[in-house]
Amino acid sequence: MTGSTFNKIITKSSRRRRSKVVLALDVFHASRAKLLRTAESLLRNVEPYICGLKLNQHLVLSLGLFEGVKRLVSLAHRYGLPTIMDAKLNDIAPTNAAIAKNYFGAGFDAMIANPIVGWEGGMDGLFKASRASRKGVLLLVYMSHPASGEGYGQLVLDPSTIAPRPLFEIFAEKAVEWRADGVIVGATYPEKVARVKKIVGETPIYSPGVGAQGGDLVTALRSGATYVIIGRQIYGARNPEAAAEKLCAASRQ
Amino acid sequence: MTGSTFNKIITKSSRRRRSKVVLALDVFHASRAKLLRTAESLLRNVEPYICGLKLNQHLVLSLGLFEGVKRLVSLAHRYGLPTIMDAKLNDIAPTNAAIAKNYFGAGFDAMIANPIVGWEGGMDGLFKASRASRKGVLLLVYMSHPASGEGYGQLVLDPSTIAPRPLFEIFAEKAVEWRADGVIVGATYPEKVARVKKIVGETPIYSPGVGAQGGDLVTALRSGATYVIIGRQIYGARNPEAAAEKLCAASRQ
Repeated sequence: MTGSTFNKIITKSSRRRRSKVVLALDVFHASRAKLLRTAESLLRNVEPYICGLKLNQHLVLSLGLFEGVKRLVSLAHRYGLPTIMDAKLNDIAPTNAAIAKNYFGAGFDAMIANPIVGWEGGMDGLFKASRASRKGVLLLVYMSHPASGEGYGQLVLDPSTIAPRPLFEIFAEKAVEWRADGVIVGATYPEKVARVKKIVGETPIYSPGVGAQGGDLVTALRSGATYVIIGRQIYGARNPEAAAEKLCAASRQ
Repeated sequence: MTGSTFNKIITKSSRRRRSKVVLALDVFHASRAKLLRTAESLLRNVEPYICGLKLNQHLVLSLGLFEGVKRLVSLAHRYGLPTIMDAKLNDIAPTNAAIAKNYFGAGFDAMIANPIVGWEGGMDGLFKASRASRKGVLLLVYMSHPASGEGYGQLVLDPSTIAPRPLFEIFAEKAVEWRADGVIVGATYPEKVARVKKIVGETPIYSPGVGAQGGDLVTALRSGATYVIIGRQIYGARNPEAAAEKLCAASRQ
């Protein structure tokens, strides 16, 4: 769904800034008192080199959603950066909707979710809530960690053909069928990125795991990733601004 | 792992109160200002009839973890009730550990997680963090909603035997292998509860979906559930105390 509201926003941001780097701002080593200032300062320094901001629950739990995190989301929006909440939602429909509405209420533009829960009474609640608020949904298809294949690589008997297929291919097809705004495929598995690209076509692929986890930015993009998600390689660098600038330049190749 | 610290706590609580009912306190319709008082008042009224408290992210996102929710967890502990955080964790190891440490820091006694992420670099991070804090991990095996079979019921080729088996059976075996403190199986699928019971033996089964979702308490317990998780049927009742008392009595059968 390249035509969705969320995709229009992030495509525009990416073109204007000439960057395919989404910053995963998962700092949490600072004291709670300092955490918001640390996160805001990082975002200010690297914002010219990124096209979006992704947060996980580290900052939400430490700072509170409607206190610290909402301020950070507003700061990103002032720079014109879309924001993605990586809650990896995988609950029943009313709970998915309640969680998403909280995050949308704090300003987030898209939610990441896990298609393992299926549609009826599960993902349908999230997509309905997201469409009603003109927000985006990105679906996990293949994660970036060592055991990703243990779950997402399992061979499943396709209900329609009874032929064995890896679970991530079925998830990729569901993402297209459900008109998700994007899919997540680990940069640590470029061959999976390439395979998913063939299935999802124009649906954007977001690729985490570059840097600290061993994935390579250029390989991921050449394999079909639309955006790369980078955390520790930026916020953990001695000079985050220089690191972000370098990664941004590499993403232009 | 009936001998784990978390199991000792909840077994003791369940015996002393003669209840197998875990309250899912997912109220969120009240205004944020009133929400904490509503939740505390509900817990005070029904605490004699329950053996544990489970929270999802509704209250965490609205009230903040270290503000409102920590107070609610402390109140539960004053009644001797163990507390379970239903974050359905399904992330990479460092993120699982960071999220769990936040919840443990606020007082929670156990975390619910999704085994789809596999062990290495995924669930290992959560189990390590939980063991270090002497906290519990409960794993999703079969959820309670209509599409649960679409994900958890998929036929997977078992890597060791190449025979097709439903995914939830593989998850149940992993729960035993990883020494999880319990598994989650929807009360809406009593035949799945019975099947999982045969696989997990003494590992406790927690069964959500009683009441509003259509599951029956007595059927779930007779099928092998150790505890039932009940939300709307209690907090949504005209008289929550009377509803909890009745469900508690039924759980003694």
